[in-house]
Amino acid sequence: MATDFTEDNAADAVVDSFADTPDPRLRTVMSSLVHHLHGFVRDVEPTLGEWERAIEFLTAVGQKCDDKRQEFILLSDVLGVSMLVETINARGAPEATASTVLGPFHVVESPRRELGDSIDLLGGGEPCVITGRVRSVDGTSLPGAWLDVWQANDRGFYDVQQPDVQPEGNGRGLFTADGDGAFWFRTVVPSYYPIPTDGPVGRLLTATRRHPYRPAHIHFIVSADGHIPVTTHVFVADSPYIDGDAVFAVKRSLIREFREIDDEDEATRYGVSAPFRLATVEFVLEPREQDG
Amino acid sequence: MATDFTEDNAADAVVDSFADTPDPRLRTVMSSLVHHLHGFVRDVEPTLGEWERAIEFLTAVGQKCDDKRQEFILLSDVLGVSMLVETINARGAPEATASTVLGPFHVVESPRRELGDSIDLLGGGEPCVITGRVRSVDGTSLPGAWLDVWQANDRGFYDVQQPDVQPEGNGRGLFTADGDGAFWFRTVVPSYYPIPTDGPVGRLLTATRRHPYRPAHIHFIVSADGHIPVTTHVFVADSPYIDGDAVFAVKRSLIREFREIDDEDEATRYGVSAPFRLATVEFVLEPREQDG
Repeated sequence: MATDFTEDNAADAVVDSFADTPDPRLRTVMSSLVHHLHGFVRDVEPTLGEWERAIEFLTAVGQKCDDKRQEFILLSDVLGVSMLVETINARGAPEATASTVLGPFHVVESPRRELGDSIDLLGGGEPCVITGRVRSVDGTSLPGAWLDVWQANDRGFYDVQQPDVQPEGNGRGLFTADGDGAFWFRTVVPSYYPIPTDGPVGRLLTATRRHPYRPAHIHFIVSADGHIPVTTHVFVADSPYIDGDAVFAVKRSLIREFREIDDEDEATRYGVSAPFRLATVEFVLEPREQDG
Repeated sequence: MATDFTEDNAADAVVDSFADTPDPRLRTVMSSLVHHLHGFVRDVEPTLGEWERAIEFLTAVGQKCDDKRQEFILLSDVLGVSMLVETINARGAPEATASTVLGPFHVVESPRRELGDSIDLLGGGEPCVITGRVRSVDGTSLPGAWLDVWQANDRGFYDVQQPDVQPEGNGRGLFTADGDGAFWFRTVVPSYYPIPTDGPVGRLLTATRRHPYRPAHIHFIVSADGHIPVTTHVFVADSPYIDGDAVFAVKRSLIREFREIDDEDEATRYGVSAPFRLATVEFVLEPREQDG
């Protein structure tokens, strides 16, 4: 007997069509996708014209992508999906440092630097010192923990966005914590910045009166032997847009005061000029589960 | 107070970000999209690797599109979404002819033909006669109704797919019903055929062991003064894949027997050679609502 397509049986009929999928995980994903997608269509009851506009939008998103630009990730970002996936995949001990999105500006290998080095190779911005410690959830220090750090400069650009202006590795560094798990480095206070707006995602933000800005932040990937690495940001508490990150990556526990210190002795101690800003961060890692 | 992103509040936070959307319809659509999309992600809990593969798939779908190929429509088709949207937009009197998808092979203007003309300009296939009538839901004939007809040939190709093999307009015609709303034309029995499989949607079908075939059908758009036009197919009852159209477009009410007639007198009457196949179709249109 031929299928009789109706609004009521449509989702089930499509799910049935995936019944012979050899990979059970793919079958599960497709079944869930069909139910949620049909649920969306039944909720909003798009006109044929609206459906065509949706097709055109998705096509334009795909066609904006090239080897330097990933507009579908950007779409996932502004719909909060990237953060949701990241958060689902980083469920762990509540006392461990929360994760947030990797973002598109991480590079495979940043330059190795010594504790106290500056990752600001240009000068001119507001001097800033970051100090902190890496520990396990039980309070034990994690000597020799590794910190992969990257940030935008005081104008809101990463080095890879301005190869003619910024030397390679500006705003980046790989650090190794000392025997107490402590670390420190110098930099400039990063600026908030917009995500790219010259594509279909930018047009969506404009049409919905959403701004494209991310509050100022420094990226970290923190790792230590026997522990689960964390990919995260430290957000600058007084940055514009701290209440409305365009990609929803702010978790309250990741916001730090960048205190202004106008004290020559303190400045001299850190090798910067006063006034400068000082932020202190503790990263807390969760031990990996032991086999057996 | 800064937003604190959690799995539980994520969808609401993203919906809130669309609160200032000036177009209320766009706001409604985006809110529903976010709830259903986050619901899907929370259901399947994709790994970061799975999420990357989803991004890559959608990107490839967009990049397969050009002025002759619309892979996102194809994706919508194989997920049953195109049919669902079509069905939602064609709710009407239950006794009216049901609609189905337009498909990608309609052309703006097919050649005008006289009743009884053949739309098969090449010969060689199984001869076929289509007869029928167009009426209103109350039974009244609709004299002068227009029928826009198009179909694949006996090898399963439309003229636009084979510009070097088929003359332009092969398998197509615009007919005007007579004073009783009756019509007839000659053709060949169309073949079932596959949707395009050389792109990401084809790879999805392969990975899920779904076939790409559509059962044999003839497309119609039927219109008459004062009535709502219907975009539909007539399906060949004994076609392979009548139980499993790759794009879910079959409605039982649209299936017709294409009876084999092996009678020289009948064949002569229709100007074909015996044996031939004969299908009879009644199209029932719903009156437009009158203003005031």
